[in-house]
Amino acid sequence: MNRKEFIQRSILGATLLGSSTLGYSKSSVTEIESFLSKEKQASQKHAIGLTCEPIPTVRIAFIGLGMRGYDAVRRYMHIDGVEVVALCECRKEKMDAAQEILKKNGRSKAVEYLGEDAWMKLCQRDDIDLVYLCTPWILHTPQAVYAMKHGKHVATEVPAALTLKECWELVDTCEQTRRHCMMLENCCYDFFELTTLNMAQQDILGEIIHAECAYIHDLRSLCFDKESGYADMWRLKYNEKHTGNPYPTHGLGPVAQVLNINRGDRLEYLTSMSTNQYGMSLYAAEKFGSNSPEARTKYKLGDMNSTMIKTKEGKTILVQHDITSPRPYDRIHKLSGTKGYVQKYPTEQIALEPNAHEFCKEEEFKSLMERYEHPLSKKMKEVAQKVGGHGGMDYIMDYRLIYCLRNGLPLDQNVYDAATWSSLVELTELSIQKGSMPVAVPDFTRGNWNLLKGFHMADI
Amino acid sequence: MNRKEFIQRSILGATLLGSSTLGYSKSSVTEIESFLSKEKQASQKHAIGLTCEPIPTVRIAFIGLGMRGYDAVRRYMHIDGVEVVALCECRKEKMDAAQEILKKNGRSKAVEYLGEDAWMKLCQRDDIDLVYLCTPWILHTPQAVYAMKHGKHVATEVPAALTLKECWELVDTCEQTRRHCMMLENCCYDFFELTTLNMAQQDILGEIIHAECAYIHDLRSLCFDKESGYADMWRLKYNEKHTGNPYPTHGLGPVAQVLNINRGDRLEYLTSMSTNQYGMSLYAAEKFGSNSPEARTKYKLGDMNSTMIKTKEGKTILVQHDITSPRPYDRIHKLSGTKGYVQKYPTEQIALEPNAHEFCKEEEFKSLMERYEHPLSKKMKEVAQKVGGHGGMDYIMDYRLIYCLRNGLPLDQNVYDAATWSSLVELTELSIQKGSMPVAVPDFTRGNWNLLKGFHMADI
Repeated sequence: MNRKEFIQRSILGATLLGSSTLGYSKSSVTEIESFLSKEKQASQKHAIGLTCEPIPTVRIAFIGLGMRGYDAVRRYMHIDGVEVVALCECRKEKMDAAQEILKKNGRSKAVEYLGEDAWMKLCQRDDIDLVYLCTPWILHTPQAVYAMKHGKHVATEVPAALTLKECWELVDTCEQTRRHCMMLENCCYDFFELTTLNMAQQDILGEIIHAECAYIHDLRSLCFDKESGYADMWRLKYNEKHTGNPYPTHGLGPVAQVLNINRGDRLEYLTSMSTNQYGMSLYAAEKFGSNSPEARTKYKLGDMNSTMIKTKEGKTILVQHDITSPRPYDRIHKLSGTKGYVQKYPTEQIALEPNAHEFCKEEEFKSLMERYEHPLSKKMKEVAQKVGGHGGMDYIMDYRLIYCLRNGLPLDQNVYDAATWSSLVELTELSIQKGSMPVAVPDFTRGNWNLLKGFHMADI
Repeated sequence: MNRKEFIQRSILGATLLGSSTLGYSKSSVTEIESFLSKEKQASQKHAIGLTCEPIPTVRIAFIGLGMRGYDAVRRYMHIDGVEVVALCECRKEKMDAAQEILKKNGRSKAVEYLGEDAWMKLCQRDDIDLVYLCTPWILHTPQAVYAMKHGKHVATEVPAALTLKECWELVDTCEQTRRHCMMLENCCYDFFELTTLNMAQQDILGEIIHAECAYIHDLRSLCFDKESGYADMWRLKYNEKHTGNPYPTHGLGPVAQVLNINRGDRLEYLTSMSTNQYGMSLYAAEKFGSNSPEARTKYKLGDMNSTMIKTKEGKTILVQHDITSPRPYDRIHKLSGTKGYVQKYPTEQIALEPNAHEFCKEEEFKSLMERYEHPLSKKMKEVAQKVGGHGGMDYIMDYRLIYCLRNGLPLDQNVYDAATWSSLVELTELSIQKGSMPVAVPDFTRGNWNLLKGFHMADI
């Protein structure tokens, strides 16, 4: 495209941008543009379908033992073929609570790493197979990269990365070290998501052409809870400095699997829009008084963020994020296909041709849910619901991770998924800073998004 | 903004656009840009709050007696203070059917205008107060403008206009002739919409910061019905040539009223995205065979269109359109406020602080719906549901139109609403042609969007 064409094509956006106030810019546009694609080392090969030597007993280290980490240790007591070797945490009382779980379950005490930088020492051990990260967002990529470089497989809480630079670091490190890097997107293992994935794969819904998903979860009280909320209020601090959708993967993961993203299709571009910020200021004023520092802080995060993504194959995805509005919890999970339609919230519903103009009645719904129950859910449901963790999905996720490692299988979620899904964190913020301009989604597979045909879990 | 800034700010969009195929362009960018604002005649004054002399008996002419027009004539038999003076239609059998309604109700036979251009002759009569348009979309603005120029008030089916040029024509003609121009957005008068409008106005939901709405209605069979569908298949022909959201107002109207659009806030810019087209081709192949002309036609309209709008005051609106996917009917109607949340589909739900983390139980829901029932609904419900027309809302709309004309009151929906809501037809198409670039929404009030404070219906 020549300069004249470019200006002609941009003029509507520019007409708009001329009259709008742009937000701050933490990176210059040129810097960002350089992350749309990235050269690899000559020796570097893709890690699609990556398999490693089977590990009969997976030796695990948990880093971060707060909300998510504590519950992970608890769940792993119910998984065969694992050994908890080491634990890492800044706060003594969290460390003690996790050790207590091991003790209660008759396990050996884990080696303790206490303090801010202790995780590096932990990664330097040579008796660990898997590092399991439940730390604040900003630590995920640095810790994952460091762990892979020290020969460890990595499982990290969501999002795996906060910037495009970090996304590429995960991909490059995985490709160079040939270590697994799985983002712990637990919502991919929830029951309705698994069943509807199975329905889509059995062609019950036809071709899925549009999907919607979200993370709508009122976290105001947790964000402003100085005692038992996020350590040192890291989530509130992040919300103060950033806009866009900082937490896109719970919604996006399951629908990306349905749409075979990185396995026959890929995210091509997105455009993002946020409301102004209302909820945090109002909440802070009510809780701490309108003259409190909390109420007077300028938070950048808009309450509702809506992002639209176009895929290479012409499908669209709507992704939303709202953690500061008084609303019931909602991940949406709508799939619209050429033969049927499903949605999870507020109640699970299915509509199928030739009667798709109305939702299935209760009996038919139940029968469909049974008929298309995912093999994984069939196998795991009973134990999973007993062990718990968001109703069982956390346990199924952990089980699959360990099962694949023990059997030398490719993981269900690979590093390209982690990077692609997490890339929305910065891409949505960029789009909003530019008045909702469309922004290209990098192809983290470097052209290999069409290598695998369809999403499949190995050896279910 | 200087050239360097413009290029810097546009570079991400441009990077994207460089690699994407742009669609056809029916207007050059420069032409379109000229419609972002428009000079008015020196003598021209705004028509906000326009009132005209009361009309004791409103003499009506209906143009277009197909699906919507036929039912309109039927409904007007139940409205006091009207006289059906003339009818206009191309098809003799539709004319006869409408005359039959008058006859059955003991009314005088209306003067007949049969044929393509007969509507002009009709507009030239001097015994008509109101011209009521139920014609194909492309005729709405030409007919409305012609009627106003001949001294008639106008009510037109949706959308009132298909291009920005037409939107400005409606506004300028209304301002110059001082005749009313109301778009017949019936969904503004549906019961849940009225109740939630009232809740919002009573501050029960706090400040509404995000709204969602749609027209999701599987019209495949109607679009491909050569006998009893749209006359000469005009809707299918439009879908063949256009993308974007050609029918945005059923969803947008009610939420625009809640958000006080053109009365304290205004639509500032939007960005739009569509899936590729699947549904029409599949349907045509199934119905007429895969080698039929219908199946081989390239239709431009994507199945699902999603459009995000940002308002001047920092709110966002999601508007969707899908008439070709197998899904239950859905106008969404979600309102997310700082104190509560409502949604209409698939079932009507309300969630209010301090318990907004879950929807109200049935009893509380019913009690809220009663407590906040809109005065108009209280007054009209019984008769409206008896007369019918989309469950009653059509009748309430007609009643209000006539009530305001008879009493010399401003209409509930003015010409700026008609233009603003209809402007999405072309703006969404433009955005999509430019790879989802943001596009400014013209301010059809020419700076007077803040003149009225809040949306109100006169004399309820």
